[in-house]
Amino acid sequence: MKVLEERIQRDGQILGNGILKVDSFVNHQVDSSLMDLCGKEFARLFAQLGATKVLTAEISGIAPALTTALHLGLPVVYARKTKPITMPDQVYLTLAPSHTKGRMVELIISPEFLAHGEKVLIIDDFLASGATILGLVRLAEAAGAKIVGVGALIEKTFEGGREALKPLGVPVVSLTCIASMDDGKIVFTDQ
Amino acid sequence: MKVLEERIQRDGQILGNGILKVDSFVNHQVDSSLMDLCGKEFARLFAQLGATKVLTAEISGIAPALTTALHLGLPVVYARKTKPITMPDQVYLTLAPSHTKGRMVELIISPEFLAHGEKVLIIDDFLASGATILGLVRLAEAAGAKIVGVGALIEKTFEGGREALKPLGVPVVSLTCIASMDDGKIVFTDQ
Repeated sequence: MKVLEERIQRDGQILGNGILKVDSFVNHQVDSSLMDLCGKEFARLFAQLGATKVLTAEISGIAPALTTALHLGLPVVYARKTKPITMPDQVYLTLAPSHTKGRMVELIISPEFLAHGEKVLIIDDFLASGATILGLVRLAEAAGAKIVGVGALIEKTFEGGREALKPLGVPVVSLTCIASMDDGKIVFTDQ
Repeated sequence: MKVLEERIQRDGQILGNGILKVDSFVNHQVDSSLMDLCGKEFARLFAQLGATKVLTAEISGIAPALTTALHLGLPVVYARKTKPITMPDQVYLTLAPSHTKGRMVELIISPEFLAHGEKVLIIDDFLASGATILGLVRLAEAAGAKIVGVGALIEKTFEGGREALKPLGVPVVSLTCIASMDDGKIVFTDQ
C-alpha cells in the first residue's frame, strides 16, 4: 500500500535490534485518516472470507483492527494483556513474547466473546516473528473458532513470520513488507 | 445518546462497587458501528472548539477517541501505561488511580506528540471520579497544551467527576449519564 510505505519511509525510525519506531502515526500517536484507509483496504482484501469477528491484541492492534471491523461491519475483540476485574475467572489465556517489552506477556480473551464456530480475521500492526499472531490463533482455536485470514500493517519479512503462519493455510496479507533495515535504510519488497 | 443508553440498558452488567461492565461493546469486544456513531456525535458536539489533537488513555479510550478523531480529521494520542522501548527517556508522566485495577497506574506521553500551544480534546470511555481525565489534563498542561473539551461515553454522575472537572472551564459532554445503579437497576439522567 503505497501511502503507508511512503509514510513509513518518511516518519519511521530505525532504532536498532530490528525495531522500527512508528509512534508518530501507528503506536502512540495515530493518524486516524491513514488508519481508516488501511482498514478499508483490509476490508476490501478480506471481504470474501465470511469473517464474523475481527481479533487483535491490545494495544497497538486496536486501531487498525477497529477500522477494519468498521468497514466490514463486524465487532472486534482485543485480547487483554492483564485480566481486568470485569472478566470472569475462567478465561482463554496464552503466553507470547513481546518484541518491544523483551519478555513474555499474557494474552487473555473472555469465553463470552469468542464462540465455537466463529470465523476470525486477525489484524495486527506488525507481522514480525508471528509469535503474537500465533498466540491469538491458539486462543481462537481453544474457543473452537476458525481463523480465516491474517492481516498486518507492516511485515518485516526478515523475521520469518510468514513461514511461521503458513501451516494455518489462510491468506496472510501485509499492507507493506520491509525486506531490510540495514544501514539506517528501509527497503520495501513485494509480498 | 439514545442508542448508547439502550445498549447499556440491554448489555451492561452491574458488578457491584460502582462497576459497570460494558465488555461486550466497549471494553473487550467493541461494537465498531456503535463506536463510529459515538465518534460522529462527539465530532458534531465539539466541532467548533478548534481542537488540533484528540487525547485519551490506553486501553479503553482508544476506540472512541479514534472514531472521534476520524470524524474531526485529527490525529489521536493515547497515553501509555508502561513506557515502551521506542519512547525517549524524557517523557511527561503522571499517576492516576485505576478503578478497575484497584491501584495507581502511570500515564505517560512522549513530548514528541504533545506540543506547546496545541488544543486538546480529551475523549475517554468513562467519566467517573474524573481522576484519569485529570491525569491527562496534567500531562497536556505540562506540555504547554490547552484543554478545549472533554467527552466521555458514559458518565456515572454519582462519582463526582463533573465537579472535579469544573475548574477547567471547558465543555464536558457525556453521551450517556448514569444517576444510579442501585438494586441492579441502571437509571439514566439528563446531563
